[in-house]
Amino acid sequence: MLISNFIKEIDDDAFLLYQKISQGKMLRAKLVSKIAGDSEDSKKLSAVIEMIHTASLLHDDVIDESKTRRGVHSINALYGDKSAIMLGDILYSKGFLELLYFDKEIAKFISDAVCELSVGEMMDVNLSNEINLDKVKYFQMIYKKTSVLIEATAKSAAYLAKKDVISYGLYGKNLGLAFQVIDDVLDVTMSDEQLGKPSLADFKEGKTTLPYIYLFESLNDQDAQRLKSLYKKELTEDEKNWIKQKMRESGAILRAVEFAQKLGKEALKAIEVDKNDDLQRVITDMIERDF
Amino acid sequence: MLISNFIKEIDDDAFLLYQKISQGKMLRAKLVSKIAGDSEDSKKLSAVIEMIHTASLLHDDVIDESKTRRGVHSINALYGDKSAIMLGDILYSKGFLELLYFDKEIAKFISDAVCELSVGEMMDVNLSNEINLDKVKYFQMIYKKTSVLIEATAKSAAYLAKKDVISYGLYGKNLGLAFQVIDDVLDVTMSDEQLGKPSLADFKEGKTTLPYIYLFESLNDQDAQRLKSLYKKELTEDEKNWIKQKMRESGAILRAVEFAQKLGKEALKAIEVDKNDDLQRVITDMIERDF
Repeated sequence: MLISNFIKEIDDDAFLLYQKISQGKMLRAKLVSKIAGDSEDSKKLSAVIEMIHTASLLHDDVIDESKTRRGVHSINALYGDKSAIMLGDILYSKGFLELLYFDKEIAKFISDAVCELSVGEMMDVNLSNEINLDKVKYFQMIYKKTSVLIEATAKSAAYLAKKDVISYGLYGKNLGLAFQVIDDVLDVTMSDEQLGKPSLADFKEGKTTLPYIYLFESLNDQDAQRLKSLYKKELTEDEKNWIKQKMRESGAILRAVEFAQKLGKEALKAIEVDKNDDLQRVITDMIERDF
Repeated sequence: MLISNFIKEIDDDAFLLYQKISQGKMLRAKLVSKIAGDSEDSKKLSAVIEMIHTASLLHDDVIDESKTRRGVHSINALYGDKSAIMLGDILYSKGFLELLYFDKEIAKFISDAVCELSVGEMMDVNLSNEINLDKVKYFQMIYKKTSVLIEATAKSAAYLAKKDVISYGLYGKNLGLAFQVIDDVLDVTMSDEQLGKPSLADFKEGKTTLPYIYLFESLNDQDAQRLKSLYKKELTEDEKNWIKQKMRESGAILRAVEFAQKLGKEALKAIEVDKNDDLQRVITDMIERDF
């Protein structure tokens, strides 16, 4: 595979370490393929973007002290923070180097996104210092942290395929936002086994995601106080169950899912003239499921 | 200053944190100015390269667990590893984004260097696992970790000024190697006060730099055993003095300095036809001093 070749080109030790990373859904690579087909250029673009995305996850896991990723141990858990930081830097820099192969427009879309993404990570950490109930700040943060690279992926693939960059950018942006909201919902609704990591991890890490913001809006004073008292705490099973129950009862989950569905529909609207079944399915698979 | 503007453009929090970094000698910016003058383009190139260099130092300090940098507390010591990783990512990505403003050749010189630099950091860490007495490995590592970005800086500036890229690259490469060897010598010969950080830190961190490699070559078995027993240890004053004395007695310091001087002369030779007094002085200031 192309990414493996890229990494082998620069360093054997880095390649050995890279092989220990559990591969994800490759959403960004899939997007490139569905928008721009499977030419040499689009395969190379996919590889570059997935390398950059992996680099950001490696650093994220160090920053968030996450011990698991996709159901297995994270690189920082297995080999220490240093290795994760260094491998991240190698993947970032190789990604940037290979980006120069493409038209300047594409290189700008992606570089700009990485810059925003790194600012998004800092916003995420800063927002986690205390309980954030500001939806605007939440959406600004998830836009930068998650959506912006998916938006840039869609724009770059559209540029490569000579399709409308603005429409595909809008698709990517809304897909990215919906994807993150759903991810934040799943952290609440799924079991540890289904997630491959502890559930309700966001709240423990100080992250008041959209379901929590909605929940706080609907709780009475007493319950709001109780929820506040659990913020950033290691939760007992009873406390976990109480949060999950309140999330359902209050309609916070439903509201968050409906918001994600709205974003998904915006994404679909942006590219409806192109009648691309695959891209429609990316959205519907994400939002039409049980939560 | 241009770097400040670049960082302000993307994030206020990042700018506040950036201001806490103690500024260094700006060797790379000086090089650009001495080679390519002070046009808008060369100022921008300096800013981009110094941003990237600062990013690499931020991550280095996390990886090496360095608590001081240039005589003051490092960012990781002051604000934690997370902040240093995130600010490093922001500076790297903004640096790459602004690099796209330049000709593709320049963007490639620098991106390629950053890629090698990040591999060099990994080599440095891996070489520090046990005592390395292989000079070839040492030079491969310092070439990547230190010299390659200085080489790329000189090449980029020469390209900008329509001067000979190969000659200036050779100048930068040898300057970078000499600079690192001298830095490694100073870690042994200078006091904690002169260094602005604990002396003999390299050996404690597992780094057998050129003076140590030479020293091991010249010690008798008993002294070599003693030196080995001090590897990676917190040293007493007596042990520190013993190492410093042996370094002088054995001629290891002198050999290392002479090697750096040889590299410096190679650097001067590469650009002698241009008769650039400033660039000659960069070398002579570095190698004609007391150690």
